[in-house]
Parts: sequence; structure tokens; C-alpha cells
Amino acid sequence: MERLPGFRDFYPEPTPHPEVWSADARQYIFDKWRTVARRYNFREYDGPPLEPLELFTTKSGDEIVGQLYNFTDKGQRPVALRPEMTPTLARMIAAHERNYKKPVKWFAVPQLFRYERQQKGRLREHFQFNADIIGESNPASDAELIALLIDTLRAFGLTAQDFVIRLSSRNAWQEYYKSGKPKTESGPAEYQFFQVIDKLERATPEESEKKLSALGFSLHDVNHFIASGKPTAELDCILQNLAARGLRDFARVDYQVVRGLAYYTGVVFEAFDAKGAFRAIAGGGRYDNLVKLVSGNKVDLPALGFGMGDVVLLELLKERKLLPAFDSRTDVFVLIENEGLRPQSLKLVQDLRTAGYAVEYPLTAAKSDKQFKRVQELKAAFTARVENDAYVRIRNLNTRTEVVAGFADTRNHLR
Amino acid sequence: MERLPGFRDFYPEPTPHPEVWSADARQYIFDKWRTVARRYNFREYDGPPLEPLELFTTKSGDEIVGQLYNFTDKGQRPVALRPEMTPTLARMIAAHERNYKKPVKWFAVPQLFRYERQQKGRLREHFQFNADIIGESNPASDAELIALLIDTLRAFGLTAQDFVIRLSSRNAWQEYYKSGKPKTESGPAEYQFFQVIDKLERATPEESEKKLSALGFSLHDVNHFIASGKPTAELDCILQNLAARGLRDFARVDYQVVRGLAYYTGVVFEAFDAKGAFRAIAGGGRYDNLVKLVSGNKVDLPALGFGMGDVVLLELLKERKLLPAFDSRTDVFVLIENEGLRPQSLKLVQDLRTAGYAVEYPLTAAKSDKQFKRVQELKAAFTARVENDAYVRIRNLNTRTEVVAGFADTRNHLR
Repeated sequence: MERLPGFRDFYPEPTPHPEVWSADARQYIFDKWRTVARRYNFREYDGPPLEPLELFTTKSGDEIVGQLYNFTDKGQRPVALRPEMTPTLARMIAAHERNYKKPVKWFAVPQLFRYERQQKGRLREHFQFNADIIGESNPASDAELIALLIDTLRAFGLTAQDFVIRLSSRNAWQEYYKSGKPKTESGPAEYQFFQVIDKLERATPEESEKKLSALGFSLHDVNHFIASGKPTAELDCILQNLAARGLRDFARVDYQVVRGLAYYTGVVFEAFDAKGAFRAIAGGGRYDNLVKLVSGNKVDLPALGFGMGDVVLLELLKERKLLPAFDSRTDVFVLIENEGLRPQSLKLVQDLRTAGYAVEYPLTAAKSDKQFKRVQELKAAFTARVENDAYVRIRNLNTRTEVVAGFADTRNHLR
Repeated sequence: MERLPGFRDFYPEPTPHPEVWSADARQYIFDKWRTVARRYNFREYDGPPLEPLELFTTKSGDEIVGQLYNFTDKGQRPVALRPEMTPTLARMIAAHERNYKKPVKWFAVPQLFRYERQQKGRLREHFQFNADIIGESNPASDAELIALLIDTLRAFGLTAQDFVIRLSSRNAWQEYYKSGKPKTESGPAEYQFFQVIDKLERATPEESEKKLSALGFSLHDVNHFIASGKPTAELDCILQNLAARGLRDFARVDYQVVRGLAYYTGVVFEAFDAKGAFRAIAGGGRYDNLVKLVSGNKVDLPALGFGMGDVVLLELLKERKLLPAFDSRTDVFVLIENEGLRPQSLKLVQDLRTAGYAVEYPLTAAKSDKQFKRVQELKAAFTARVENDAYVRIRNLNTRTEVVAGFADTRNHLR
């Protein structure tokens, strides 16, 4: 029986072959995400992977509908597996915002789902590091969030030579739109305009020109605006803040970035590998109206956030050889060569585990050479063999030194 | 907009009120599960939360079908949110078992889903610690798994006064069934018999008697067998193994336990709180035929495992007051009382975070008293205030002592 297409199994290392996803690499990534988020004093939250369909369809623009894993549950409720975390966060904030001091700094590590038409190697789920600041409109909070994004990538060993944050602004594009000769002032046509900008890098000039002129703009003028790259006051403020932290080199203004999602309102940004060989590593921006929309006008809070997926990040870390080895996890292998000493050996196993060591031993009677082979496969750091009721022989497999210690004294020789 | 009934949001501590689920308590439980599993040298794996419906319906007996979150996806595939992890594990093992040395010791922390008719407070999802040993039929592996279960519960501070492992055996019940006067030798009727035993504690004697006599048995004889409690050779072996580890006090033979699932074959067990006030904390057993079934007879490996849910465990830990306080997470609050020193203060924030500290600071200009109030709310351990380009004033809020240090020397005073 096969798993569903576009879904992943995660196996322990060493995995059977490179196409098999590693549970250890996944946990390594999750641990780094959590560690850096906590340094920034972001607190973890989570919501259900299944939500009312309405939470996504009414707020995220129509383009998302065709990509949802949606169905009707046995209670006749239209539901969907979450394609993104932000609507859930907005719902949660709207429900309990009075109990949390603003600005709220929260993060989550959700699994997200999209039913996209199957392409080779294209996944229908991924994990995403989501970090958001809610309740602060000052660009100082944009800078705090972007600094978190930069430091998260640095925590994996990536440098300013490896990645760049492309900073842009919906405000700048909105002003550009209004100052042009738009066919309509705002609303759907303005959003269509953003969609064309968002796809400039992937579309042919002819396609873009055609769509832009239909909206009352020209590709030439748009390209000129992008090339000017003059930071707005808001972006300038963010860049200065990053400079004070010593992080200025990681960011640059790039108006080509505009982000696809309908709900963004101010600063938007994307993290890319410096060589441009991968899809975006992360993306985010302000969504000052979303909490109000989701709460039915009950709660009105400015907000911003980013999402960083596990798939592109892992590809990049592999390519830069920044993933550690995950194959050695055993601290001590307790050898049992005399079955008469199995009870005492089990006692030793228990003592060492209670002391915090990762301990393995032969579950059933096994020949010495088979046990030694297993020690080598596991890359155990030590072996320990009960000699009798009183003594244990401990071997350090790195220094190749041996010592015989009293039973209760064993753990003092495991360093 | 509301979340779906039976699903949970997880909020950071302090949560608004006790009925709101705590993301910090959840992470605390997950961390303990992972820590103890690693000491036992179990390796983490995971599979998709969505699987082909067939994986669950054809292998787990008909009773599970009505409780599944199942639907047809946009590719016309019958699919279901996983209600348990074991079929996924069996599928994964069957796919790549040749690449892993037996016995395989694996664990996972999946979210599981059941569409049960809504009852007050009844959840439709929960998280479960799943640990399994595959490829070893010797009861020594049952003992290893049960020891892991015991030590996992002990890691939360629970003692032999708090919980007990009730050990039983499908083999013992199968022999009892065959030695009686069954209406049929094995198959559906035998499984119906197990179902009646499984429900003995919750059903009235009249109901049980009626069902048992229909199958050719009497409640009196069944109760007598349970009361005898004589361990099989297999159970005796497990109890001796646990005794060698010093864990004998945590387990007792109890034939009332038989487990509901169709695929169990040998030893079965459940962990209960000693007072019997809660539902089962964990349950598991042998399922020696499942890998063969799931792999379509391609792979035949003995296996056993247990699952421990987060909900009953959390209730028990709360009732026994064994949950730590989760409200203090900030190491250093950097005070900014002079906005002219904000750039230097941001530099300090960055330095301390890079050194691994959890650091908070006022994102925007704020009055001193407001900043101090925030320090107290966050229960920060230290405050640090940049005095000028060269010096920082550090205050230890526990000892109420202050020191002025060189900028780069700040971190040496945060102990």
C-alpha cells in the first residue's frame, strides 16, 4: 500500500537513499526554529490543521480556493486542511487578544496543505516556521521580525554570501498605482496589478505588457520604478534599525517583490538564496486589516509576519553542505556476553538511562562479534560490560582506553 | 469565526483561563516524550496525517470505519485523516525494512483524528506518543517497551503510587476461548468475545452474561479466569525482566485488559492512574500479523507498540500538580530610557540574543514605569540599560544587585 502522492514519510537516519526524507533533519530544522524564536522572546502557539473552509475562502482572495484540500465533514460542515497559518492566528488573536499584552510576538511550526495539480516532485504538504507580531504599527516591529528571519537563517550557518532579504512595500506600489492612470481607483483591479508585478520575474515581457496596459500602465514605467529602488520612509527606518543590529548587509530594497496574497497592506519581503538558484526561502509582510476581517470588525489590530518552509530550506542546506551528521545517537552500548549476567546488565542499562544516557543493548542472546558489529553500526561512544555483581568494564571507543569501575561508579567514566 | 468543534487551539502561557489549552504544556509533554525515547535509543519517524482510506479500513476491523475523518479528495481518492499511527508505521516498515537492522525501535508524536459523535468535552483530535519495536518476537522486547512506558510516566514525576501497568495476554484469552465451548473456533466470533471482555468494566453483568452465553461462555467462568490472574510463561518472563530493572512494582497481571483493536496478537497492556479516576493513560500490545497484512504478504515481521495520548496525561499531571510554571521565559529585558541610545541598545539586544539569551526590549519609545511594569509581567531575570557607548548597567532582579560593565562584557554578568 502506497502513501498519497505529494505526501512525505520521514525516516530515521541513515535513510535508505537520498530521496527518502529524514526525520532527523526535520527535527534539526524544527529545533533551530524554536531556539531562535525563543531568543527573540516569541512564544509558541498552534491551531487545528482542519478549519472551517470559510476562514480561508472569504479572506485570502479567490485564487486560493482551487488549491485547497477541502471537503464536507460528517456533520455537513465545509472544512479545509489549513493551506497557511495566518487566518488561524488572526482567529485566535481575535478570540483572546485582551488577555495578552501588545505587541504579541508569537510563532508556530504548522504542517500546511495545498491540493495543487500534481507535478513531478511537487509536494502537497510542507512544514512552515511562522512568526508574527500583532498590535504594533511602528516599522520598528517590521525590523524586529526581519531580524528574526535573518538570525534564523544564520543559525543554520548561512551567511550574507548565502542569502538576501528583498524588501519591498505595498504602500509604495499603492502610491505608484494611484499616481498612474489606473482604470479603477482600487479594489480588484489594484490587486490584479499586484498580481502582474508578482509574476514579472516568471512571465514574458509581452505577457506582462499586455496585462499592464489593460490596467492602464506600461511595463517600461513599471520597470523604471523598480530600478529606481528608492526606499520609502518606512523602509528607510527598517534599514537603519537593521544597521544598528549589524544586520544591514542581509537586506536590500527590491520593488520587484510584492507578494501574491491579497491581504498584505504595507512592507513585504522575501528571503532568497544569493545565487537565485532556489525558490523563495521565506516570505512575509504586513496584514493590518486581517484581524479585523476575521473577527467580523470586533478586533482591529495591525499585524505582520513571515513564513519559512522546510523544503527549500533543506535543499539549500544540503547544497551548501550545512547539515550535520545525524547517524550517531547511542552513548553507551551495554554488552551482554554472559547471559547469566543479563539481570545485572539490565540493571546497568536502567541506571544509565535514568542518568540521561542513550543506551542500547542486545535484547536477546547474541554472539560477541555480532554485538561488536552493532556497536560500530550505531557509532556508540562507549561500551560497558558487567563483569560480576560488583564491577563493570567500560571502554571509550574514541580514545580506545578501558577501565574497570564499581557498578554504581560506571557513569563517572562515560566522559 | 469559530474553530471546528472537538478541535483545540493552543495558546502561550499564561492562558486566558484554565479551559484554554496551553502550547507550553504541550511542548513540555512532547519534550519529555522525546527525551525518554532517545535514552531508550528509539529513533523518531513520521508519516502523513492524510492516508489512503484503505490503510485503515481493511486492517483495523469494521468498528473503526464509522469513526474516521474520511472523504474523497479532488483526485477521486478515498482518503482519511489518520486515527492511529500503527498502520502508517507498518506501511513505512514494509517499504524500507531491508535498510534497517532489526529489531527496529522507532517512535513518533503524531496528531490523530476521530470523527466521533460530539459529546461534551470530547475531542476529535489528540496527540499521541507512539513507540514500537519491530522484528523481535522474544518477550524481552515486550519488557523493553513496557520499561519505556514506565520511565516515560516517571519522567513527569509520576510514581508507583500514581500509576500501574495492567498486563494481559491475547494468547491467554485465545487459549481460554479454545478450551471453552465456543460456537465457532476462531475469526469473527473470537473477536466478538474479546470485545465483550474489553467492555466488562463498563457494561452491566446482565449485558455481558447475555453476550457471553450467545458465544458459548458464562460470565461466572470468565470472572473466575480473570480473578486467577496466573501469568503465562511469556508474562512471567516480562515481569522478571522488569524486576531486574527495578521496575516490578509498576506492573501487575490483569486479564480484564484485552484491548479493543482487532490486530493485537500477544501481550497487551494498559497504563492507568492508581486511583482509577481517569481513562487509560496509555495502551498497547503485540501485533505480529499487521506488517504482513499491510505489505500484502511481502514482509513478515513481529511487532509491538504502545500509544500514550496527551489529553488524559495532562489531566493527570494537573490533578497531581506535576506541571511546572511556564510563565517566565525572558532572560534579559533591555531598558531604553534614552531614545538617543536606541541604536546602541539594539546592538546590545543583538549581541545578547546571539549569545543565546532570550531578550526583550521596548519596540517603540515607552515611559520608564511602563517598561518596569513589563519587566515584572515577563518575570525577566535581568535588566540591562545602555549608559553610553561604552557601558551597560545590569540589574539582577532576583538578588536585587546592580553592576556597571563594559559593553562587550555584559554577558559575563548575566548569571
